[in-house]
Amino acid sequence: MQKQPLDYSKEPTRPAHQLIVRKDKPFNAEPQLQDLVKHYITPDQYHFIRSHGPVPMHLDADTHFITIITHDNHSHRISVNDLINKFEKHHVMMAMQCAGNRRDGLHRVKHTKGVIWGAAAVGNAVYSGCRLKDVLETVGIHSRISNVQHLHVAFMSEEQCEEDTCYGSSIPLCKALNEFGDVLLAYEMNHKPLTRDHGYPLRVVVPGYIGARSVKYLKSITIQPYESSSYFQQRDYKLLPGKISNEKEAEAYWSKVPSIGEYNVQSYVCDPPNGEASQAKEMVVQGYALSGGGRSIQRVDVSSDNGETWTLADLYQPCVNDSAHAWGWCLWTAKVTSHPGVRIVSRAVDAAGNVQQEYPVWNYRGVLNNAWRTVEAPSQL
Amino acid sequence: MQKQPLDYSKEPTRPAHQLIVRKDKPFNAEPQLQDLVKHYITPDQYHFIRSHGPVPMHLDADTHFITIITHDNHSHRISVNDLINKFEKHHVMMAMQCAGNRRDGLHRVKHTKGVIWGAAAVGNAVYSGCRLKDVLETVGIHSRISNVQHLHVAFMSEEQCEEDTCYGSSIPLCKALNEFGDVLLAYEMNHKPLTRDHGYPLRVVVPGYIGARSVKYLKSITIQPYESSSYFQQRDYKLLPGKISNEKEAEAYWSKVPSIGEYNVQSYVCDPPNGEASQAKEMVVQGYALSGGGRSIQRVDVSSDNGETWTLADLYQPCVNDSAHAWGWCLWTAKVTSHPGVRIVSRAVDAAGNVQQEYPVWNYRGVLNNAWRTVEAPSQL
Repeated sequence: MQKQPLDYSKEPTRPAHQLIVRKDKPFNAEPQLQDLVKHYITPDQYHFIRSHGPVPMHLDADTHFITIITHDNHSHRISVNDLINKFEKHHVMMAMQCAGNRRDGLHRVKHTKGVIWGAAAVGNAVYSGCRLKDVLETVGIHSRISNVQHLHVAFMSEEQCEEDTCYGSSIPLCKALNEFGDVLLAYEMNHKPLTRDHGYPLRVVVPGYIGARSVKYLKSITIQPYESSSYFQQRDYKLLPGKISNEKEAEAYWSKVPSIGEYNVQSYVCDPPNGEASQAKEMVVQGYALSGGGRSIQRVDVSSDNGETWTLADLYQPCVNDSAHAWGWCLWTAKVTSHPGVRIVSRAVDAAGNVQQEYPVWNYRGVLNNAWRTVEAPSQL
Repeated sequence: MQKQPLDYSKEPTRPAHQLIVRKDKPFNAEPQLQDLVKHYITPDQYHFIRSHGPVPMHLDADTHFITIITHDNHSHRISVNDLINKFEKHHVMMAMQCAGNRRDGLHRVKHTKGVIWGAAAVGNAVYSGCRLKDVLETVGIHSRISNVQHLHVAFMSEEQCEEDTCYGSSIPLCKALNEFGDVLLAYEMNHKPLTRDHGYPLRVVVPGYIGARSVKYLKSITIQPYESSSYFQQRDYKLLPGKISNEKEAEAYWSKVPSIGEYNVQSYVCDPPNGEASQAKEMVVQGYALSGGGRSIQRVDVSSDNGETWTLADLYQPCVNDSAHAWGWCLWTAKVTSHPGVRIVSRAVDAAGNVQQEYPVWNYRGVLNNAWRTVEAPSQL
């Protein structure tokens, strides 16, 4: 079947954004690193935008509804207006991070597939909406249904894509039903209605998981005994073994390798933006740190001498009262003496003692790069 | 106040155990590495034993009871017999890992404090008992009580210790109340009553957390707005920054550094036990892998050439139907060509993409060592 070409003629105008465009169609852009760490709550104009197709043009909060299909095949329609008016409103502050954040660091090791993001495909915002758990309970989905631990919640989007009929993804049902999991059907970001770029009129937000699971332009929710069969769950966002380096080799591995949910421990030096000062001096460096699954950052070490010695960073990671877990990011500063030609690096440790490894562990899709060293492109690339 | 000397005259006789004793009083012992990976469910005689004092000698399942003190200061008594007879029995298979597992690898870098464990302070067993969540609900503690996300469950043990009046520890209440958290008050291990060494007549088991939180010989449970004030929560089991290398320096840091809950991603080569073959040959190596928080192992890479090239291991990590999370460990095998004098190493990647780092990140208490390289003792030690 021949697909219609995707129509990019009705994209948002994006007059205010201050982003570096990494790809035009679909639109993918990230801020300058120095801009990223100026604010603990990332303002809209500095928040990265990740699209998989044209921004849907016909959606309206007043008329939009979603369909929920339960595991026993009952179908329910709920309007966005009902989600706003009939369910308790919750606020969740969380870091949204693309699984491809810092893909450039892996791409310099060897060719990767995907948008070549720098280290700013991450932002920290407040999302408001109703809890997915509350909505599911109204259609009979709760933690005592049989086989609950093996069910999944699949989301489909109104966003059309090249790779599939539409964007789609899933999460385990136990994440959605966890009283402390904070999964929202969100209609606001930073206390304003979602912009078209961020999923208007309704998106999922899944704290602690890679951004790919926080489906924008939500169309439907299905409770099912298997993961989403979408391209973006089955053939993308997977950490392939290092020996797989092209599409053909990947064929045998897509079904064997689990899809990514939570992300790993991460940090990066954002100011100075290239990690270097032009002269030797004592200076304050700034960056971000975060970890998946609600694991807080317990420490950030900073080194200006290639990892020989490390300085403890001062962390800013306020406790947010509504959540049991640390979904937000941590901003940090450290005072170090720079050495020209030596990149200043950071190494975060999360609450579970996971630490960023030293060298990039390359993978074909270029996901979850969290090495504390960056490497130059090898000469053969 | 002068404490009575601890009485070690009534220790279990331990006729069957096949363990290497790391410390006699209190008794701390771990199996040979090759024994450890012979069984997916670790038999009692090969399961490490971690004690903080003499094994309590007067406890009897028929007469023992625990006290539960709620956040509003109500006190409740529940007998072990009632826990056995009046609550649904649940089975949880989980890896129990001491936070000090592989401390020897850090101790070779620089002096650490604690029992110098090898890499076998970990085991995988089936625990049976009632869910802590079910018990707490009978005394009015559930996920809708106010301030629930900031409360803790403190456990006190009948075990007397040198460092404090008794062993104690705590976990966040949200871990205990999580429908999919699987925290048990266990009275059986591998389908037999707990042995005295493993906490008879009743212990807590906290899947995905360091062993220190799975308090043995349970005496009381307290719901409170702060962590346990026990020595073992406040001044131990913390990942101190690398610059802290003695008790005096640690003083200023105990209150600043968070206590450890979940553990990090881990794996180790257990057969051959020293990681080396005496001659170059193709051989099958075996080991274990695990990660905290219920994160499954998605890949184990094995290298026999110092990390130049990596071979994918075959994983054995069966799905256990009762749990939504992977609390059990993973056993693995890989076929590699050994090079005499080069240690064969393994590097696990967990479901969140966390990977073992290359070199040990030393800390004074020697906890959570998960480096894939091991280092020889520096000459000055």
